[in-house]
Amino acid sequence: MKTLILNGPNLNMLGTRDKNHYGGATLEQINSMLSTESSRLGLFLEFYQSNIEGELVTAIQKFKGDAIVINAGAYTHYSIAIRDALADKSCIKVEVHLSNILAREEFRKESVLSPVCSGIISGFGQDSYMLALEYIARRRA
Amino acid sequence: MKTLILNGPNLNMLGTRDKNHYGGATLEQINSMLSTESSRLGLFLEFYQSNIEGELVTAIQKFKGDAIVINAGAYTHYSIAIRDALADKSCIKVEVHLSNILAREEFRKESVLSPVCSGIISGFGQDSYMLALEYIARRRA
Amino acid sequence: MKTLILNGPNLNMLGTRDKNHYGGATLEQINSMLSTESSRLGLFLEFYQSNIEGELVTAIQKFKGDAIVINAGAYTHYSIAIRDALADKSCIKVEVHLSNILAREEFRKESVLSPVCSGIISGFGQDSYMLALEYIARRRA
Amino acid sequence: MKTLILNGPNLNMLGTRDKNHYGGATLEQINSMLSTESSRLGLFLEFYQSNIEGELVTAIQKFKGDAIVINAGAYTHYSIAIRDALADKSCIKVEVHLSNILAREEFRKESVLSPVCSGIISGFGQDSYMLALEYIARRRA
Amino acid sequence: MKTLILNGPNLNMLGTRDKNHYGGATLEQINSMLSTESSRLGLFLEFYQSNIEGELVTAIQKFKGDAIVINAGAYTHYSIAIRDALADKSCIKVEVHLSNILAREEFRKESVLSPVCSGIISGFGQDSYMLALEYIARRRA
Amino acid sequence: MKTLILNGPNLNMLGTRDKNHYGGATLEQINSMLSTESSRLGLFLEFYQSNIEGELVTAIQKFKGDAIVINAGAYTHYSIAIRDALADKSCIKVEVHLSNILAREEFRKESVLSPVCSGIISGFGQDSYMLALEYIARRRA
Amino acid sequence: MKTLILNGPNLNMLGTRDKNHYGGATLEQINSMLSTESSRLGLFLEFYQSNIEGELVTAIQKFKGDAIVINAGAYTHYSIAIRDALADKSCIKVEVHLSNILAREEFRKESVLSPVCSGIISGFGQDSYMLALEYIARRRA
Amino acid sequence: MKTLILNGPNLNMLGTRDKNHYGGATLEQINSMLSTESSRLGLFLEFYQSNIEGELVTAIQKFKGDAIVINAGAYTHYSIAIRDALADKSCIKVEVHLSNILAREEFRKESVLSPVCSGIISGFGQDSYMLALEYIARRRA
Amino acid sequence: MKTLILNGPNLNMLGTRDKNHYGGATLEQINSMLSTESSRLGLFLEFYQSNIEGELVTAIQKFKGDAIVINAGAYTHYSIAIRDALADKSCIKVEVHLSNILAREEFRKESVLSPVCSGIISGFGQDSYMLALEYIARRRA
Amino acid sequence: MKTLILNGPNLNMLGTRDKNHYGGATLEQINSMLSTESSRLGLFLEFYQSNIEGELVTAIQKFKGDAIVINAGAYTHYSIAIRDALADKSCIKVEVHLSNILAREEFRKESVLSPVCSGIISGFGQDSYMLALEYIARRRA
Amino acid sequence: MKTLILNGPNLNMLGTRDKNHYGGATLEQINSMLSTESSRLGLFLEFYQSNIEGELVTAIQKFKGDAIVINAGAYTHYSIAIRDALADKSCIKVEVHLSNILAREEFRKESVLSPVCSGIISGFGQDSYMLALEYIARRRA
Amino acid sequence: MKTLILNGPNLNMLGTRDKNHYGGATLEQINSMLSTESSRLGLFLEFYQSNIEGELVTAIQKFKGDAIVINAGAYTHYSIAIRDALADKSCIKVEVHLSNILAREEFRKESVLSPVCSGIISGFGQDSYMLALEYIARRRA
Repeated sequence: MKTLILNGPNLNMLGTRDKNHYGGATLEQINSMLSTESSRLGLFLEFYQSNIEGELVTAIQKFKGDAIVINAGAYTHYSIAIRDALADKSCIKVEVHLSNILAREEFRKESVLSPVCSGIISGFGQDSYMLALEYIARRRA
Repeated sequence: MKTLILNGPNLNMLGTRDKNHYGGATLEQINSMLSTESSRLGLFLEFYQSNIEGELVTAIQKFKGDAIVINAGAYTHYSIAIRDALADKSCIKVEVHLSNILAREEFRKESVLSPVCSGIISGFGQDSYMLALEYIARRRA
Repeated sequence: MKTLILNGPNLNMLGTRDKNHYGGATLEQINSMLSTESSRLGLFLEFYQSNIEGELVTAIQKFKGDAIVINAGAYTHYSIAIRDALADKSCIKVEVHLSNILAREEFRKESVLSPVCSGIISGFGQDSYMLALEYIARRRA
Repeated sequence: MKTLILNGPNLNMLGTRDKNHYGGATLEQINSMLSTESSRLGLFLEFYQSNIEGELVTAIQKFKGDAIVINAGAYTHYSIAIRDALADKSCIKVEVHLSNILAREEFRKESVLSPVCSGIISGFGQDSYMLALEYIARRRA
Repeated sequence: MKTLILNGPNLNMLGTRDKNHYGGATLEQINSMLSTESSRLGLFLEFYQSNIEGELVTAIQKFKGDAIVINAGAYTHYSIAIRDALADKSCIKVEVHLSNILAREEFRKESVLSPVCSGIISGFGQDSYMLALEYIARRRA
Repeated sequence: MKTLILNGPNLNMLGTRDKNHYGGATLEQINSMLSTESSRLGLFLEFYQSNIEGELVTAIQKFKGDAIVINAGAYTHYSIAIRDALADKSCIKVEVHLSNILAREEFRKESVLSPVCSGIISGFGQDSYMLALEYIARRRA
Repeated sequence: MKTLILNGPNLNMLGTRDKNHYGGATLEQINSMLSTESSRLGLFLEFYQSNIEGELVTAIQKFKGDAIVINAGAYTHYSIAIRDALADKSCIKVEVHLSNILAREEFRKESVLSPVCSGIISGFGQDSYMLALEYIARRRA
Repeated sequence: MKTLILNGPNLNMLGTRDKNHYGGATLEQINSMLSTESSRLGLFLEFYQSNIEGELVTAIQKFKGDAIVINAGAYTHYSIAIRDALADKSCIKVEVHLSNILAREEFRKESVLSPVCSGIISGFGQDSYMLALEYIARRRA
Repeated sequence: MKTLILNGPNLNMLGTRDKNHYGGATLEQINSMLSTESSRLGLFLEFYQSNIEGELVTAIQKFKGDAIVINAGAYTHYSIAIRDALADKSCIKVEVHLSNILAREEFRKESVLSPVCSGIISGFGQDSYMLALEYIARRRA
Repeated sequence: MKTLILNGPNLNMLGTRDKNHYGGATLEQINSMLSTESSRLGLFLEFYQSNIEGELVTAIQKFKGDAIVINAGAYTHYSIAIRDALADKSCIKVEVHLSNILAREEFRKESVLSPVCSGIISGFGQDSYMLALEYIARRRA
Repeated sequence: MKTLILNGPNLNMLGTRDKNHYGGATLEQINSMLSTESSRLGLFLEFYQSNIEGELVTAIQKFKGDAIVINAGAYTHYSIAIRDALADKSCIKVEVHLSNILAREEFRKESVLSPVCSGIISGFGQDSYMLALEYIARRRA
Repeated sequence: MKTLILNGPNLNMLGTRDKNHYGGATLEQINSMLSTESSRLGLFLEFYQSNIEGELVTAIQKFKGDAIVINAGAYTHYSIAIRDALADKSCIKVEVHLSNILAREEFRKESVLSPVCSGIISGFGQDSYMLALEYIARRRA
């Protein structure tokens, strides 16, 4: 199963960002762990990160595969453009967040993406991504 | 009269998007019909589509012509940047939408662009664009 | 195609009303132009205007034809009675406004009629009506 | 690791409830699957379900263990009493939901429990519980 | 002290934009005056402008220096992505605006960036930038 | 006991309106059934329907009798004029609705008439009227 | 000076309405007193009352004179149609109320008519009308 | 037809509660009258009252019959748990209230139960229950 | 009849303030005219102005007389202290404003004083005060 | 004077709960101190605690005595059922809180119980209860 | 322990104010009773009352002692200036009210002072002050 | 150029106030530094501080000069009286704050004064005043 790991703005700075909320691992380290995990689970991963909303939209449009794991960062809270792009895809869509967005500032409690995703996994640090892969593998089973 | 047909995010996916709301024609097919129509009406058309908010801003800034027909897609609802770019242009500006945004989800009912456009044509499928051209031609008359 | 041109309160005063928002033509002049246009387009028009909400409701109920072009004036913003009457008709329904209601006072930005109309054309002065006829004619084609 | 699987009101009716949102398995079947899974993961599970808010509060107070997996059902949206009980526990706390509460009615989008839980897993049917166990097992590792 | 002068959408159009709000100088003219001023104050300036939200995010991420003077234009009011990027920087951050955003339309009164900036200078035309440099120089003293 | 059966806008179209919400009977058929029922209950009925808000106000003002059963249709949600007319009457006043207005769109959930009526019966189709008669008869007993 | 005394819904019932709020005089008695007063002040009065919103609109449209004294009753709070009709008149327009609408229920505190009237006199019983005449006479002086 | 008469918190105190709103009869007296009525109507009644939200949920879950008449008292306004329990039942569900909840304090105007009930009867004192039985009997007919 | 003419903040600056809203007369000129008028009406006037909220409170407390005419200026919109002082007086209380506060900025539309005054006269320039005297004289009659 | 000391959810956990907000004493220790104090004041105390909303309702209903001191914990903020039960009692009712609920999270600032209690004492730790007893004793004096 | 008894606007009028809410004692009588009480408790009292917000601010600033008992009257609801003054003091601060502000008009339910006070005692008439002294004495113990 | 340095409530306490937000300098020290600075810039300064809203209004009214630098402290957020006084002055008006009010509590984010000031400088400690002088000097240049 081909799965896109899609990260939004500022997630390229993991490791140097506020470690309290986002942990100490870099995006490369997280992606590397996900690759290891995906071998065990029999998934094939693609990785993409951009700070630009429209490039994330395009990445979603172009993806031909079975599942998308998306951490849209700040765009989670206002990008109807990404929402529309996701809504047009019929594959499995899992929204993930490192921190628990429902336990932070008021403006981070709303996700405009959730209504078009299968589900959300939020607050487990890099395990949020891991659990998403776990779910995708279970769906295949 | 030189007219810019400006399309925003996800409108490059017309034809494969939710046909219930957006119809079955691709953007290329719509643009082709608009070209035909423009010949009849004596208008000269330019076409531009981008998923990137800032590129739409730049396209508006660079356009030297008589009229802009804009379907900003999801950006309609929150892009003050596009609004500011439109506000700076003194040409005819017509906001169009394929679906009737006033008849959909609550968050799609607000257009931050409307206050700086001449008018809005929303809900007539590809005819929304056609009627916009019709209006521009009438203004010249 | 039989089409009802339905105008609401104060639109009988066009020509003397605030010309900045509504232009200088009288309702008679607009209707006359629409008649001319309809000949060209092969449409048959009926005209009705009332200041009384309930009479507009009744006019909608009694109309037997293919399309309604409605400018409900101030009732646009609060008449659920007119909305219900329109909802009960299955013909083409086009909402029009002379000024761009989305670009005016906050209370004029909401249309309770839009959710039951095919689409809206707002802000093009008397051309709003013309474009509505154009659309109806296209639908027949 | 001792883990409490805590279910709130109406979850005792799974299997006969709206299967569109909640799936076809009964709570007993889900618990049985969780037991199997827990053996594999080396977790020890306890199960409790109640329709009564205060009994859920008491169950949380009395629990002596390492982790709580809670699906508080309807109480998710208004029980500050359960929130306070959870806030007083220092163990791992995972909020789960069968359906994606962020994609349903407006009143189901708020969880008063999220701010005192480690994270949320919502929308994956019975897999939501499974992933929670997976996470707890990872935390031990 | 190395200082980044960062300008957002539509600020590349200064000089032709609504001069009532933004004054008659172009961005090049403002930057040139800032360069002159910086010599007097012993500051070293870098300049960057983009209409693209994500490129502003990246510019903030990449900047290695002592202070950022940011006029994010329309993004001021909704870009949580830029806010997050600023929050991750520990240098001096000064928010500036040509017009007094607190004295304009309601939607321009909110700045999502202010909570992560040292302070705001708004309403003094190009002097807003000058005062920002003045402040940065004072901080060094 | 003299009772006024008062129906508001669009209720003259029952039978052809959305049968899902309003049932298949015409207003005449309902009134006929009510007449039959009233004989059994010893009530004397008067019937009035109008699409015009002010005519409903006048009908209430002129009525000399023991009870009013009112289905004000869309005016239920905004006619303070009808509310004021009802408030001035000291007879029994029963608000009825065919559909359950508390279970429909948000704007139909508020009744400005309820605070001046004895009670509300909503959602039982034509039985809503029947039950109102039943209540009035019981009050006499 | 020709002055129109315009009364809205339920004001024809003065004398029998809630005397606590509206006093014990009938509309005929008030009008009679106003006639007497107008003689003293040198004004010429016309009287009109209707329960029908649209008829009030028409009365305003047709009036050719120097001043309108309007008590729109319940329509005060929601009739944008009457507001638009008043906005189109350039004569003196005085809004009056028997009770002090700013001291009653929340929904009576808003007047949609005030923004298009010269001023408001509210809370002085029938003297509200008297003072309005007084003002009109002073304006002539 | 088996019908459950379900009463919520504080309704066991009828007779001593605020008689202005709730009348002077005790719950036992009301139930006794309902029994008499049910004989006439050919219905078979069960009675249950509890102050505990979760026990009301359980009572709904366990009921096997044709109709539920529910007066959930204060829980009407916030118990999503009871709502969910009702939503899972396909029998006739009638919401009743002694006082007219739409005519009381703001917080009593919302019923979270209404959207999942057939209809509501509110404001007729103990007759509210009677009319509910009447409706159920009519449905059988 | 002893009457207090009470003016709040910035009203001492009349004549130099924004003449569009407040007219060209100074407070002394207005008071002088009121004195003349009061002789005609048989009223005895006292005058007090202060910019200090608490001094206005004290002035109200100390006044022993028949009527208060108050223009509380900006305090109209937020001084619950003045409201409480007025509420404690049983004399005639007339709220006046030079401009029509209901026709200005949103924050000027609310008067916290209105609910404790007999009535309001707003929008007639200095005639607002004159009409207040007129009313007080009529009350004596 | 017989006084009921009524404690709601999670207050049975005092001593182990967040000591910052609630202090270090257990409920038993507080009750013991209250007993000592009551001897001095000549009051007779009863104690009851429950996590279950409905049991608190029942405890209030059954209490025959002179005063209730209630700390309803989390139910303070949403239990209209407890409010209704309190409203039905005519004895002295004192609402107490250990922490100052008006100085905490937004959702804890509202008490639905306050409108039916004599008064509130909040923020003085266990002294809140002591002061309540003090007040009750004074009322007897 | 030196304690300041600080009273705000209109509290100098106690005894003549609305006795329903505030009781029949004058401020002098209350202060006299407080003096008696303070002797028993070993406290030393200072008294200050002002109608002027800024004088209350100054009184707080100048006070050198152990505790402040403040009834800020109407300023409770909006004086951020008094709040700031209180926030700067580290002594015991007790907010008191004669009536129960949480049980009155909506605008009296908010206290901007509560978040900077130790606690609130509201609704016990003059006993509110007494209980405050009692608390202060206990703190010393 | 004559400039008024105007400080509002609690700013006389600088040095002892919360130093985190306001810094450690006293108002005298700040004023002294401003005097030194003004000599360099060729400005002539006047200083005024008051805790009393109305005295600040009067100070503004009486000032005859070229510029006002105002830190209205808490009154910033609600004093429409000060706003009106400022609106009446045509000199340069600069709003300053020591802390960044846009980065603090929600209620401090709104300034009712901003709409009538030239600009705002907020968050730079005592440098906020310095930069204001700098700006005034530049305006003269």
